Amino acid sequence: MRFTDCRNLPLFTDLYELTMAQVYFEKKMDKTAVFNFFIRPNNKRNYFLFAGLDLLIDYLLNLKFTEDDIEFLRSTRKFKEEFLNYLRNFKFTGNLYSVDEGEIVFANEPIIQVEAPIIQAQIIETFLINTIQISILVATKALRCYSVAPDKMLIDFGMRRAHGTDAGMIAARSSYIGGFVGTSNVLAGKEFGIPIYGTMAHSFVMAHDTEEKAFENFASVYPENTIFLIDTYDTLEGVKNAIKVAKKKGIRIKGVRIDSGDLLTLSREVRRLLDINGFRDSIILASGGINEYKIKELVDKKAPIDAFGVGTELVTSADTPYLDCAYKLVEYDGKPKMKLSSKKVTVPYKKQFYRIFRNGKILKDVVSHFDEIVENGVKMLKLYIKDGEVVRRSPPLQEIREKTLINFKTLPDTFKSITQHMTLSPEVSQRLLKSTEELKKAIRGF
Amino acid sequence: MRFTDCRNLPLFTDLYELTMAQVYFEKKMDKTAVFNFFIRPNNKRNYFLFAGLDLLIDYLLNLKFTEDDIEFLRSTRKFKEEFLNYLRNFKFTGNLYSVDEGEIVFANEPIIQVEAPIIQAQIIETFLINTIQISILVATKALRCYSVAPDKMLIDFGMRRAHGTDAGMIAARSSYIGGFVGTSNVLAGKEFGIPIYGTMAHSFVMAHDTEEKAFENFASVYPENTIFLIDTYDTLEGVKNAIKVAKKKGIRIKGVRIDSGDLLTLSREVRRLLDINGFRDSIILASGGINEYKIKELVDKKAPIDAFGVGTELVTSADTPYLDCAYKLVEYDGKPKMKLSSKKVTVPYKKQFYRIFRNGKILKDVVSHFDEIVENGVKMLKLYIKDGEVVRRSPPLQEIREKTLINFKTLPDTFKSITQHMTLSPEVSQRLLKSTEELKKAIRGF
Repeated sequence: MRFTDCRNLPLFTDLYELTMAQVYFEKKMDKTAVFNFFIRPNNKRNYFLFAGLDLLIDYLLNLKFTEDDIEFLRSTRKFKEEFLNYLRNFKFTGNLYSVDEGEIVFANEPIIQVEAPIIQAQIIETFLINTIQISILVATKALRCYSVAPDKMLIDFGMRRAHGTDAGMIAARSSYIGGFVGTSNVLAGKEFGIPIYGTMAHSFVMAHDTEEKAFENFASVYPENTIFLIDTYDTLEGVKNAIKVAKKKGIRIKGVRIDSGDLLTLSREVRRLLDINGFRDSIILASGGINEYKIKELVDKKAPIDAFGVGTELVTSADTPYLDCAYKLVEYDGKPKMKLSSKKVTVPYKKQFYRIFRNGKILKDVVSHFDEIVENGVKMLKLYIKDGEVVRRSPPLQEIREKTLINFKTLPDTFKSITQHMTLSPEVSQRLLKSTEELKKAIRGF
Repeated sequence: MRFTDCRNLPLFTDLYELTMAQVYFEKKMDKTAVFNFFIRPNNKRNYFLFAGLDLLIDYLLNLKFTEDDIEFLRSTRKFKEEFLNYLRNFKFTGNLYSVDEGEIVFANEPIIQVEAPIIQAQIIETFLINTIQISILVATKALRCYSVAPDKMLIDFGMRRAHGTDAGMIAARSSYIGGFVGTSNVLAGKEFGIPIYGTMAHSFVMAHDTEEKAFENFASVYPENTIFLIDTYDTLEGVKNAIKVAKKKGIRIKGVRIDSGDLLTLSREVRRLLDINGFRDSIILASGGINEYKIKELVDKKAPIDAFGVGTELVTSADTPYLDCAYKLVEYDGKPKMKLSSKKVTVPYKKQFYRIFRNGKILKDVVSHFDEIVENGVKMLKLYIKDGEVVRRSPPLQEIREKTLINFKTLPDTFKSITQHMTLSPEVSQRLLKSTEELKKAIRGF
């Protein structure tokens, strides 16, 4: 059973996608629709790191209603046989444009563009938003952690507090893309090839009669590779026990982990004790309620911490646990479409967007008509699926991760703050602006 | 492919669970451990609704390392052949005690108790916390929504903003347990038998040349069953269009949905227009950024809204996106265990907990030794799995839901506030208190 097998999830969709589909089917509305996925402004995020595309592509390629699915739909009495027959042969035959994973993007940019017969474009909506939102959410949080501590090892320790198993997997993948070095999630190691890390748990220490005995047992199985968890009873006694065991057994202390207490004070004292005992190469790993704000504070105060295990706050993006994002119809059958309900006006038309750099830094982004050329602009939307066939895929995660770190260097420093809100709003090209204004007048009738 | 098939996820575990397991294996530490799962105090939640147990039981029953899993573990070079062989035959053979799904619980109560050979009890930790945490998180949020609007229809519209597919499924299940009437999630309808609901999307209206045409098309396919989305362009024009179409076609308006704008003012005017046109039975469904606080405000102001679609805020539990919860070793090989690191002291010993009622309301909860009898107390922990075999299961979801609503009536009114923090702290029995104090002294050595 592969994790990705679970991704043939045609019924992982809102009911209205299927009921609307039946109307389109009966009314023979089978023309091409264009949908844009974008993120609305978020005052706690200056930028977003795009991730999750490869999971979406897997879903699109595997999408197929099974007989079991059809049977369930029949049992709801909401669907007619003709439509159920249509679903039997349903597959995604459209085009998928997307920015590359590992790109930095901003609010109101068309990050993903789907161009497909309208039924297809609708049925995939729920999964698309679901998977892309959490992927970007965690990737962005991870990059914020990386941004304040690029020289530290950051490890995803969040799977147990992620919202379900899928989130645990996506969090591992997204945080790796966002600059983390690995994860504690073994399945993510298997499925995604992400480096896996682990130390020991308090329960392990507690299961033994003494901390010293626990350390001895662990170190005898992993003599080269033990990170001792030293805060089960008393952190400073804990590090002394680790040193005692290492000296007695003649082994190295790969590192120690502190999971509670005043990390600044404790890490300094622990470092001192390790150093005076000759364990200068042993690392200190801190965990427990870590986020980018705490990492920054500890880094600013020069806490001698080499690695952070970031868990709950990373995987739930606790300071902003969701992105207001949308997947909006912008064209149907060649006609531009826009919504005018209060505060949620969308920009119509099939689009492209361009990034313009100056001195290696992002100067501005320009959202345009799809066929426009913006001078000196780098095209951000690339064709990944053409007529249902993959024509481009995300590179291996390691490469995406490297690309992220290169892309991050192009982000102007003003946007890198984790506390001050300062972001880039994409320009809309003159031509797109004009067509949009004209359409707005036409809809409003004045 | 069934959703639950994806739950054979033995590698969905933190690496340290497996490395510790190898140490236990090599050192022949195969005695029984007892772990307690509990939630730490949360100042935004006065109570928690327990859910997710049946998913955990499925996982425990299906847990098996495949040859593919073993091969991956071998490739990490962290495990020896003897241990990998042991994993080949790994299954859960322990006991699982739990409160029933649909019970109201409080912080610091041992909600789940696992009693198993220590390797087993550790390997299941990650999945247990992962699945139970999100299940309780959403169930609790749902019950808070229900608590302020018990006479309204509440529907889960959150799957697209849930953190991944698993969270989307769990959110549907948990919100139903928490008093919702159903979900938009079709797969949750199939897998869990939850009633499914849907209306139409803005894109559907926009795909047509006019709103009127969109309404006509939809209503002609579902003449008895259409909820018109009326805010794509202008809400009041929208309801007029719905009325026009219904009159022209001689059909009923099952309802209208408003997804934006000032819901109080709009719902009043929409109600008036429906009523004067003879559509007194048509319901008004509100959606868009709904949470328990907004529902309460609208209910308090007597907004004529019959149903709420609750999405993002429900499935991410946005005001408190995670529960600080833990799975702690309390006994190993018959010996009590406790951790003393700062601020995280745990209560040792295998436990039971009792609920004492007065006049049909919860008076207090008492946490005790497992074999204690608390007079007039109702035993909360029940045996679900005995020696690896299921001896009790959660009833059908519909029954759990009914039980939740009965249990909710036993909650003292003071705890029902969604804004004032007032909760119940379980008492620790005199005997358990005394044993704990003695153990603390013994560990500290004074």
